[in-house]
Amino acid sequence: MTQSPVMPVDPPARLLMGPGPVNADPRVLRALSTPLVGQYDPWMTATMTETMGLYRELFATSNEQTFLVDGTSRAGIEAALVSLVEPGARVLVPVFGRFGHLLTEIAARCGGEVHVVEAEWGQAVPASAIEEAIRRVRPDLVAVVHGDTSTTIAQPLEELAAVAHRNGALVYVDATASLGGNPFETDAWDLDVVTAGLQKCLSGPPGSAPITISEAAVAAIDARRSVEAGIREEGDAVSERPIASNYLDLAQIMDYWGPRRLNHHTEATSMLYAARECARVVLAEGRDAVIERHRIAGEAMAAGLQALGLTLFGDQSHKMTNVVAVEIPPGIGGDAVRTSLLTDYGIEIGTSFGPLHGRVWRVGTMGVNARRDAVLTTLAALEQVLRRAGFPVSHPGAGVDAALARWDDDARRAAGVAS
Amino acid sequence: MTQSPVMPVDPPARLLMGPGPVNADPRVLRALSTPLVGQYDPWMTATMTETMGLYRELFATSNEQTFLVDGTSRAGIEAALVSLVEPGARVLVPVFGRFGHLLTEIAARCGGEVHVVEAEWGQAVPASAIEEAIRRVRPDLVAVVHGDTSTTIAQPLEELAAVAHRNGALVYVDATASLGGNPFETDAWDLDVVTAGLQKCLSGPPGSAPITISEAAVAAIDARRSVEAGIREEGDAVSERPIASNYLDLAQIMDYWGPRRLNHHTEATSMLYAARECARVVLAEGRDAVIERHRIAGEAMAAGLQALGLTLFGDQSHKMTNVVAVEIPPGIGGDAVRTSLLTDYGIEIGTSFGPLHGRVWRVGTMGVNARRDAVLTTLAALEQVLRRAGFPVSHPGAGVDAALARWDDDARRAAGVAS
Repeated sequence: MTQSPVMPVDPPARLLMGPGPVNADPRVLRALSTPLVGQYDPWMTATMTETMGLYRELFATSNEQTFLVDGTSRAGIEAALVSLVEPGARVLVPVFGRFGHLLTEIAARCGGEVHVVEAEWGQAVPASAIEEAIRRVRPDLVAVVHGDTSTTIAQPLEELAAVAHRNGALVYVDATASLGGNPFETDAWDLDVVTAGLQKCLSGPPGSAPITISEAAVAAIDARRSVEAGIREEGDAVSERPIASNYLDLAQIMDYWGPRRLNHHTEATSMLYAARECARVVLAEGRDAVIERHRIAGEAMAAGLQALGLTLFGDQSHKMTNVVAVEIPPGIGGDAVRTSLLTDYGIEIGTSFGPLHGRVWRVGTMGVNARRDAVLTTLAALEQVLRRAGFPVSHPGAGVDAALARWDDDARRAAGVAS
Repeated sequence: MTQSPVMPVDPPARLLMGPGPVNADPRVLRALSTPLVGQYDPWMTATMTETMGLYRELFATSNEQTFLVDGTSRAGIEAALVSLVEPGARVLVPVFGRFGHLLTEIAARCGGEVHVVEAEWGQAVPASAIEEAIRRVRPDLVAVVHGDTSTTIAQPLEELAAVAHRNGALVYVDATASLGGNPFETDAWDLDVVTAGLQKCLSGPPGSAPITISEAAVAAIDARRSVEAGIREEGDAVSERPIASNYLDLAQIMDYWGPRRLNHHTEATSMLYAARECARVVLAEGRDAVIERHRIAGEAMAAGLQALGLTLFGDQSHKMTNVVAVEIPPGIGGDAVRTSLLTDYGIEIGTSFGPLHGRVWRVGTMGVNARRDAVLTTLAALEQVLRRAGFPVSHPGAGVDAALARWDDDARRAAGVAS
């Protein structure tokens, strides 16, 4: 029982510089408050179709089947895996962090026979190791995370699909944490299914999972298509080996987003608005420009953290643009520093999971926060917190200076090009 | 490829008087646009805990395990069924409309041995038939829809759990379309798991599914608990018979909402804000007052539609308060009437599914739209559309007069009580 009148929600001001969720773009917040329409209103279905087109641009694909799964990014992952992995199917997962383990968990619950090829946390999985595993395991599906925020490593994907396809496997990629802020090419890299989320580089709230599906993957999914009782009509498919989930059944969700508009769930209207606006603002700035902005902000943050005297974690040649991990210095309380940043400065950074819990801080520069003032404010505040915690910062202003130099370099280069 | 600059979302004005989604309360729309915080921010976790308390009041329960599933109401249904139904478990589903069929579909995909006890669409299932089926089938779970919007019928639930529990079955109830607008008592009716949605009587957007779980159901779910690889620690449970879904695994979701705050999905912050505000505005008005408002608006709408000369569909003694079905008169184009209402008046009403598709219109009075001006506006517009379609409306103003009389009766009764 509530004792006093409950008031409208009123969160504290936060600059979210962790591994995500990050602050939503104000335009996305405004889109969320847009009035609802009915689920089969012509304007609603047109808006769904328009949103499919925007996400084709974001995913760099011509896949007709490009839409939203109504749930957090994990719902998108599970929709992909439960729709692609039949009981007994062989699934190969390159694991290089916590979210690779998640793929093995979900694939196993789908009844898949799961094989892994692992890298130490902080490294990508060598292409040769993946190729060897594909030849050995002969998987039906290779399921891989693109950018695993738990380690900040991005797995190279350019060559993966060719090897997988030659060996009869489809390729699923979890691009939750990378899409929009890192180079990503669904069609050029020949990926079959890719899922994402809004709450990282797309500056939106968690709760909607964009997905794109190649024709080959659509064919595999359609083979298990079942139209549900209660709306089934004569001639509609009833599979002998239906997808184990109804809610995350991509065959049914395709029927709902497609021209037949067959009733499935009720589309989450407000999250559709948010997802559409996330894509719209990225495309308005330019997809490549946004990726470049992430690259620069990420480099500036990494340079600043190093200049403060911190040591970067992981293979920097395979780092995601949008998050960096630094080792927590010996004798410094990792949680105390994070708490002080949050309480005294309203700035959030993260720690990590499993073997890295308490060993690293993770600092994000993603979405709307991949910008100069957010990076400089974070470095300035962190310098103060580290100083008060007794850490010997190399010299006052070192972090901010190094970060600023990154943008100054860019400005000089641009001026040089212009002159 | 988009040809011209894409503009922010700008939907047409709509009065949503169908079976839902209905218009969101403006306060809920505002809550949606609230800035985000991090998922483990102390304010965020406190807000999650506070929201659990608000939904306990709405569900009329003291169940500790009362929280949100991140997806549409169908995600809540599937979370309940996949977490309760082990492969081979016997599930009895009383079916009296489309959403009963949906429960059989989902339970079957979970591997359940599904039995049904059916009523003709438009009727509730007699308690005696359910009792007979429970004794015969000896189900592990009775899964039933409370209010099935496809037929507008509400299944009486007061006596169900006693019979089910005496025979060793748990009871799951889908209250998506009824909660908040119809009498509903989780604890007094001894229900084990109940799920809902925001987009009907709670005046919110689709995309979040409140759920409440009894101690007996928690015990059944906990027996299948598995903490996932990547965050598992020594001593953590690994089940031999894990729940088939990861995303909709209620054991994991309980660990995330509970004091351990074990990482699972990333809570859909904006939808959490919306769900909290939905509950807040209902409780501020008073749960019983909101139900009574739905009862009156529903009676007024039904009276108005009858006065226009239309025939109500279904057993009126078992009707939901918040939606009424009327037969489409012979010779009148059901879709043409709906299109004219939408295009000329901005008002949406619905048709139905399966055997009732094209046979009935469904007119809702729910959430923020269970109010006098929405009912009168709808009846006034419908009268005009019916007249132009050639339907012999009994006399001009008949619908509005009958509806107004319902509120006048109430006002007179209130005055009588007061004098």
